[in-house]
Amino acid sequence: MIFNKVTILGVGLIGGSFALALKKNRLCNKVIGYGRSLENLQRAKENAIIDSFELDPAKACDGSDLILFATPVGSFIDIAKRIHSSLNKGAIVSDVGSVKGKLVRDMEALMPKGVYFVGGHPISGSNHSGIDTAAADIFKGAKCIITPTEKTDQTAIEIVIAIWKTFGSIVKLINPDEHDRIYASVSHLPHLIAYIIMNTVADIDSSYLKFSGQGFMDTTRIASSSPELWRDICILNKDNLLESIEIFKNNLDRVSQYLRALDSESLERDFKKARTLREGIGQD
Amino acid sequence: MIFNKVTILGVGLIGGSFALALKKNRLCNKVIGYGRSLENLQRAKENAIIDSFELDPAKACDGSDLILFATPVGSFIDIAKRIHSSLNKGAIVSDVGSVKGKLVRDMEALMPKGVYFVGGHPISGSNHSGIDTAAADIFKGAKCIITPTEKTDQTAIEIVIAIWKTFGSIVKLINPDEHDRIYASVSHLPHLIAYIIMNTVADIDSSYLKFSGQGFMDTTRIASSSPELWRDICILNKDNLLESIEIFKNNLDRVSQYLRALDSESLERDFKKARTLREGIGQD
Repeated sequence: MIFNKVTILGVGLIGGSFALALKKNRLCNKVIGYGRSLENLQRAKENAIIDSFELDPAKACDGSDLILFATPVGSFIDIAKRIHSSLNKGAIVSDVGSVKGKLVRDMEALMPKGVYFVGGHPISGSNHSGIDTAAADIFKGAKCIITPTEKTDQTAIEIVIAIWKTFGSIVKLINPDEHDRIYASVSHLPHLIAYIIMNTVADIDSSYLKFSGQGFMDTTRIASSSPELWRDICILNKDNLLESIEIFKNNLDRVSQYLRALDSESLERDFKKARTLREGIGQD
Repeated sequence: MIFNKVTILGVGLIGGSFALALKKNRLCNKVIGYGRSLENLQRAKENAIIDSFELDPAKACDGSDLILFATPVGSFIDIAKRIHSSLNKGAIVSDVGSVKGKLVRDMEALMPKGVYFVGGHPISGSNHSGIDTAAADIFKGAKCIITPTEKTDQTAIEIVIAIWKTFGSIVKLINPDEHDRIYASVSHLPHLIAYIIMNTVADIDSSYLKFSGQGFMDTTRIASSSPELWRDICILNKDNLLESIEIFKNNLDRVSQYLRALDSESLERDFKKARTLREGIGQD
């Protein structure tokens, strides 16, 4: 499994790291980058993350046998339309987006005949973003979710799985709609909440932030994640996210009621349940 | 400044670390521990964190010149009443509780004539708790809030400040009511939210937890904090906490509205504001 030419659409933390991991594992001969920022692409080339770049996504994909979407998810459809006519028969198109579901089915529908889409989502995001934080080993030991549908080509998915396994990732196959329900609760909701905690303190008195301790820093670390990436993720996973928010609000209202009633016992019972769940993660 | 006999009421992470820091800095001759668990006190003694212990708080305070409250804040008033008659004239009573405000004034009112209360709150908590995580250096470089009132004895507060500065803490003086308003927003609300995020995922499907990544782990780290400690903190700072919750809910409702309306621009603006605030912490 060696790709002659690989195109990375969006050379940031994840796209750049994917390129570096491909090179490190000698899985490709040449990596072409596409992005909106000339300066970023030039830096990626200087740092040998990509071999060359294009500012036109169609040109970047011309003749490639593997194309990776690593731009904010909100841009996928537009880019897929723009590259449509330059995709080679037999090419594999994959992505690293945090939203799957309808996006995967829309992407599949936009592939020319003989071009195979396989949805992927490496769980190696970070509050950091941009090319300077890219590294070949960020996928090692991390989960990577692959989201097959009834249309997924068997050979193409096996190749995509093999790439991630070569990178050291723990690959899990999940239905794209189930993926979005899962990640609405364990990722998209917590990101939204982290942003909201920051803005809540600002509404109260932003000078209070200087009194915060390690707990606050940990809880809000992901509030320094890319607003553009997370805007797209939240919008594209709106329905699941709104459902998670409703359940969160029910919990918040119940706890507020315990507080108003000075109901220590119920409060402690809720906290204990949460602690047991938190301490159980990764132990099964 | 050398204390002959120091009593630590509650020999857990913070109480035990305070004892170790006193010993390391040669600020005391003898440390007596009080707690509810004989087993814990025995372990503290075996590990030379305390020199002896009592299961009766009054006995533990007998003849001490420094008494530190390091039990859950909900127990302070009851213990203060129990030790009242055994407090030596000239003794300093302090605490490490996460709630100040009315609690500080109630504690002051419970001191016998000639015994001085000084409220303190080291910002060195952790999701860990218990004696096994105690260490002499946890206060080094951390903030410690001291909360004087109009009744605070000048000599007593200077001594308490000197102790924390000797431990390497950055001491800040704040009015006890202002302290509670600050920490409702930058600590008590985030703890409550972390517990609630866990219980929200459990309501959706607790099997989803195994798909979580580093962002989730960071955001919910403090959900493994002691339920008993945090039950007391939330109850005692109820009014400020409920006010913070209201402002949080307003922010959550606004963001939900953006989502429903697919208002990407407003969503991104809110996220950007949060990120700027988060990245600004510690830079002023």
